[in-house]
Amino acid sequence: MPFELTKDFIEEIKELIEIGDNQRIIGTVTELHPADIAEIMEALSMEEAKYLYLLLEGDLASDVLVEIPEDDRKRFLAELPSEIIARQYIEYMDTDDAADVIGELPSDKKDEVISFIGDEEHADEIKTLLAYDEDSAGGIMGAELVAVNENWNVQICLKEIGRQAQEIDEIYYVYVVDDKNHLKGVLSLKKLIQYSTQTPISKIYNKEVISIHTSAHREEVAQKMEKYDLVALPVVDDDGCLKGRITIDDVVDIIREEAEKDYQMVSGITGDVEMSDSVLNITRARLPWLLIGLIGGILGAFVISGNEQSLERIPNMIFFIPLIGAMAGNVGVQSSSIVVQGLASGVNDFQSISRKLLKELGVALIVAFVLSGLILIFNLIFDIGNSGHSLAYIVSFSLFVVVIFASLFGTFMPLFLNKMKFDPALATGPFITTMNDILGLLVYMVIGKFLF
Amino acid sequence: MPFELTKDFIEEIKELIEIGDNQRIIGTVTELHPADIAEIMEALSMEEAKYLYLLLEGDLASDVLVEIPEDDRKRFLAELPSEIIARQYIEYMDTDDAADVIGELPSDKKDEVISFIGDEEHADEIKTLLAYDEDSAGGIMGAELVAVNENWNVQICLKEIGRQAQEIDEIYYVYVVDDKNHLKGVLSLKKLIQYSTQTPISKIYNKEVISIHTSAHREEVAQKMEKYDLVALPVVDDDGCLKGRITIDDVVDIIREEAEKDYQMVSGITGDVEMSDSVLNITRARLPWLLIGLIGGILGAFVISGNEQSLERIPNMIFFIPLIGAMAGNVGVQSSSIVVQGLASGVNDFQSISRKLLKELGVALIVAFVLSGLILIFNLIFDIGNSGHSLAYIVSFSLFVVVIFASLFGTFMPLFLNKMKFDPALATGPFITTMNDILGLLVYMVIGKFLF
Repeated sequence: MPFELTKDFIEEIKELIEIGDNQRIIGTVTELHPADIAEIMEALSMEEAKYLYLLLEGDLASDVLVEIPEDDRKRFLAELPSEIIARQYIEYMDTDDAADVIGELPSDKKDEVISFIGDEEHADEIKTLLAYDEDSAGGIMGAELVAVNENWNVQICLKEIGRQAQEIDEIYYVYVVDDKNHLKGVLSLKKLIQYSTQTPISKIYNKEVISIHTSAHREEVAQKMEKYDLVALPVVDDDGCLKGRITIDDVVDIIREEAEKDYQMVSGITGDVEMSDSVLNITRARLPWLLIGLIGGILGAFVISGNEQSLERIPNMIFFIPLIGAMAGNVGVQSSSIVVQGLASGVNDFQSISRKLLKELGVALIVAFVLSGLILIFNLIFDIGNSGHSLAYIVSFSLFVVVIFASLFGTFMPLFLNKMKFDPALATGPFITTMNDILGLLVYMVIGKFLF
Repeated sequence: MPFELTKDFIEEIKELIEIGDNQRIIGTVTELHPADIAEIMEALSMEEAKYLYLLLEGDLASDVLVEIPEDDRKRFLAELPSEIIARQYIEYMDTDDAADVIGELPSDKKDEVISFIGDEEHADEIKTLLAYDEDSAGGIMGAELVAVNENWNVQICLKEIGRQAQEIDEIYYVYVVDDKNHLKGVLSLKKLIQYSTQTPISKIYNKEVISIHTSAHREEVAQKMEKYDLVALPVVDDDGCLKGRITIDDVVDIIREEAEKDYQMVSGITGDVEMSDSVLNITRARLPWLLIGLIGGILGAFVISGNEQSLERIPNMIFFIPLIGAMAGNVGVQSSSIVVQGLASGVNDFQSISRKLLKELGVALIVAFVLSGLILIFNLIFDIGNSGHSLAYIVSFSLFVVVIFASLFGTFMPLFLNKMKFDPALATGPFITTMNDILGLLVYMVIGKFLF
């Protein structure tokens, strides 16, 4: 029966914790998947979660520790001595998880924890992983993999795999290396089962193995595994030596995180924040953009007050201030986000920036004609506040200019940021959007001063 | 050597196509991964891509067909007779891919194509898959899987797996069923290799198998596989019978698509659109929101013209019209997108809507105090256009009210939409955002008319 977390179940656990019936808590919980236990802990209070967690042991305790949110893990580990962290948790973890958890510790505690790891090989592997940038393939990979020598036959391989596999949860591919550990190819377990024991594996392994360099960025890792539908990707160094492997579950997390980062940027939230976070944390993630928006609003006030001649000429221009501002922002965000999404998908494309801008100009011209045409017709027919034709022409012409400008600027900025090695998603963020608003307003006021 | 698509390579292919050197094109291309061939085709013109594609055969041709974008595939298949589609492509595909491709065909062509499939079992499996909703687990799953009977031993299993696996690319898990095909558990290939041939598998298979019902929504599929770090998920019917399995590569696509859908909503783009699409397609995806924005701008004009008494009282109120509108929109989008992201992550939470609104009120109060405090200080010190203290109080008080309202409304809407079984992301879209803008403006004008 698959587990389903219910409110009743949480209440039951809370009661068991209150009366301290450890036996029954352990009985109820240890049958569950670590991800389910982590979910239960999130639904409990901090104290209750800690109580429950400390009843767990060995593999299960370390698996649950990997599943709980980073903040909770940090807070929990901060209270424990390094020796306990090493002996009770790190030793049971795969190298990639261990490196992630140790990487989150304060720097003085890192070395101490590593020094307490009993298994020296495990400690060395973790140290090697920690040396890589955490956003690189080297930083994501784990050392756990099954490798066989290209000169072996099926029988030796099966025996060797059985031995190596004892420390590994799941084998997806078996990698084939030469005597110097150069990655030569990949072999599926399926083939090993299908061929007779004396078959040399050189005859059956696939030499077209897809790998990635230790220094590749994690987005590149995700794009490659997604493109080629891989569940594991071997990682090699400059010499082509096999250093580790990345599994798809890590990549799923990367895809989710990268998508969330872009989403948060365009919706004006800084940092990773969730509904379940504290009021203060949520506020902290939301204020920065709003402050930029506030400054933008103040600049807008200066733009209007500095161009009062326009309003003296045609007072009813104020009616369409919200329209011009909103359209400038909307058009700019649309343009930028199409570019950002294209860059994130990692699809190769060989169009130059100027070709892209030319295409965007095409889109912008159509959009600008439609929108300013519609508003012209509306204004000529309804003529709000008896403003006369001048206002109609000013609004339409301004909207036209603003749409063209915001489109081109919105397309150019993320491409430019990307070329300068910044995150292109910044272009969908508060700074550029606010700038578009204000420039739109300025265009409107200046056109109102001099034209029609 | 991993393949890297370069501009030179594309030029070379284009030349070979022009001179019609089919031999060399095939030689260059057939060594590549289908995903690479699809990528090359995207960089070619429509005619060139078709030329190249028609040189491919068998498995490779069908693999490439699955990889190319849906629009291109539809256009290509529209030109082919049903018999060719069935015999040259569908017969080589896995059932899930075959069902997807057939599902894209016009309804009259679907049955025709199926009728031409030579292998009757394959045709039946595809028909079964087509009967499921395409967004359900049944619609995503493939029929290809390896299942063994709970009463067998390791030796029989290995033999049976070798036989079943011939039609399957990759085996991740072996499923264990009883005589009536009820899913009983899961067995890893690793275990089969490690245990002696006479071991009954009932002793070694894992009975805690995680599965999903055929009718589950694809987001639920993704959340489950992500939560439990699975590379394949078995799908069962009402009776617990094993019907198929979903592999992680499909789920990666789902996660990417769902994230893109939400991203497009918040950035004001309707439908899936890419930089490489035609000018007309991009325009069509962008105009709808802009039209709603335009209507919003017109309503804004009515709000201002209908409240001219406010502006007669304090003319300089116009300075801060952009600020109030922008802040209302920003705050609302922030609130909604935090909720949308929380719902998309699928994390269980047991807080009621009113509890969430109460928390949001906490955040909103802090944000509102900070922002309206800052703008009050600014206005009292700088007093743009010598407007006096009244303007300062009106702006600050309006901002306060607007922030509180937009926060609560922005939090409530996606929760409400979700409860009503609509897509909560709609709340971050054009309609609600524009509404926030206008309501903000209205609050400002009304406060300006009566207060301070």
